[in-house]
Amino acid sequence: MRIAVDAMGGDHAPVEIVAGAVKWVAEEEGRQAFLVGQEELLKQELKPYSYDPSRLSVINASEIIAMEESPATAIRRKKDASIVVANRMLKEKKADAILSCGSTGAQMAAAIFILGRMEGIERPPIVASIPNMAGAYTLLIDVGANVDCKPRQLLQFALLGKTYASIIYGVEQPRVALLNNGEEESKGNSAIVETYALLRQQPGINFTGNIEGRDIFTGKSDVIVCDGFTGNVLLKTMEGMALFIAKGILDAGGPLPAFFQRLDYTQTGGAPLLGVNGLSIVCHGSSKREAVYNGLKIAEDCYNKNIIEMQQLELSKAVETEA
Amino acid sequence: MRIAVDAMGGDHAPVEIVAGAVKWVAEEEGRQAFLVGQEELLKQELKPYSYDPSRLSVINASEIIAMEESPATAIRRKKDASIVVANRMLKEKKADAILSCGSTGAQMAAAIFILGRMEGIERPPIVASIPNMAGAYTLLIDVGANVDCKPRQLLQFALLGKTYASIIYGVEQPRVALLNNGEEESKGNSAIVETYALLRQQPGINFTGNIEGRDIFTGKSDVIVCDGFTGNVLLKTMEGMALFIAKGILDAGGPLPAFFQRLDYTQTGGAPLLGVNGLSIVCHGSSKREAVYNGLKIAEDCYNKNIIEMQQLELSKAVETEA
Repeated sequence: MRIAVDAMGGDHAPVEIVAGAVKWVAEEEGRQAFLVGQEELLKQELKPYSYDPSRLSVINASEIIAMEESPATAIRRKKDASIVVANRMLKEKKADAILSCGSTGAQMAAAIFILGRMEGIERPPIVASIPNMAGAYTLLIDVGANVDCKPRQLLQFALLGKTYASIIYGVEQPRVALLNNGEEESKGNSAIVETYALLRQQPGINFTGNIEGRDIFTGKSDVIVCDGFTGNVLLKTMEGMALFIAKGILDAGGPLPAFFQRLDYTQTGGAPLLGVNGLSIVCHGSSKREAVYNGLKIAEDCYNKNIIEMQQLELSKAVETEA
Repeated sequence: MRIAVDAMGGDHAPVEIVAGAVKWVAEEEGRQAFLVGQEELLKQELKPYSYDPSRLSVINASEIIAMEESPATAIRRKKDASIVVANRMLKEKKADAILSCGSTGAQMAAAIFILGRMEGIERPPIVASIPNMAGAYTLLIDVGANVDCKPRQLLQFALLGKTYASIIYGVEQPRVALLNNGEEESKGNSAIVETYALLRQQPGINFTGNIEGRDIFTGKSDVIVCDGFTGNVLLKTMEGMALFIAKGILDAGGPLPAFFQRLDYTQTGGAPLLGVNGLSIVCHGSSKREAVYNGLKIAEDCYNKNIIEMQQLELSKAVETEA
């Protein structure tokens, strides 16, 4: 498996990205990584490590896209940005997947322009895996790619989330719920009420109705659909609350229970962009080596499970049903 | 101080409501409570207690509004519902405040119809106090009264939240932030971008810009403005996450650190509806006696601090500035 790693994106690039990739490659024979970014810098960074150069190499990309740049404009103008070069490698089948800790907007824009969207998907969403009381994960989708969403786009998120849950977590007939401010069918703003009706009549989706915030953690649903504004605010609130509680426990002199690791987003790795024609793993901007390493393992898992082809197949079935 | 308590609303009505009111009244001479609801039932409920009947009495109200009823319709049709009777007592100055653990929608509708909205307020919001790392509280407003909000309504929430922070928590020049999916001015959906511009140009508001979910707990802001859909989902997610982590700690055999009490919404009491012409305390539907008692103390605090008159004054100043 060959992964093109955006070595320039993220708060701790390139140091932590390089370290994570080195670790991943060293662990198994069949793994190959391309560190995409400023050649001189990356070669310097690699010096302290011993590695097999046939499996870990640098691909030069001279430009960097900063967090505050407009993603669409940056992608079009900076043809030699690391994320653009990595996406091109994937498109040209020189890599099987890409991974980046850089601007999510830029990664999304590059994927849309270079890889293209899957049939039936207007706005590719980002999925997050939230640990739950059942010892499993609940998928929250979208957690930040699309701040203004139309009901039919939320339905598309449900289709992608459902397939992700069954392919990656092996859940049969994933229970799909709509995030809302109450369980009753009439609850929510106008877009949510309309989405409820669409989800209920969509064949092939095991729609279990509305779900409230407090049930995200109970394991009552496998997939929770929301717009990217709500999902992003929510995900970051969970991160903040985990830190708040961890601090409280430590301040009180207590040791942090082991299960807090499940809540530590810096360890989580990442998640694929869903609905684009290629495997592109989005990692948290503040990822350190362990998270990068975990992200590369997620890429491998998705690759081994053929997530892209499986999702394309699932979507074409949904489109057929509609027609 | 005289409080009309809706004894019929909430998951644990009337048992826990009555118990909380009895405790509150017994504690200090100047306190008086009216238990509003089905007379026979409430008199029966009061039997085991010894209390001063000149300070604790039952006011008959034969009807009950259920959680699933349409609030506006129910308020108009059920003239003898406990929440309607309580609001009328407040309007007619037979009580200084009211408290209810029943349907928030019904409480809101009754307040709007009977007490009326303050000048300059289109949609009264609900405020929640979120504990933060600075050992204080951050106000989140609106947490569920209005699922579809216009930018000028979010501005009104900011004015109400700001006054609440300074009157109730004694914060000088409260820092007001807008909840968003990023800190940059350009972030958010279209309504949020427009709200940002309104907040920045509003005199008398110490607007500190956008805030992300993870900073809710850091104490970086005193007041965080959001629409009621996002706020409600967020508040319930925090509740769910606190329970999830508490369970994890207990399952691991550890004692629950004392500061978890700050996160326990069943203890919190309640918060006033803001922007209506009368003091109406909304409590969580699952409140037990301790929460009802705490809610009554919040009502007392708000009453002693003249929150209604102070907010009316503040709003009239804001309206003058606009004109």
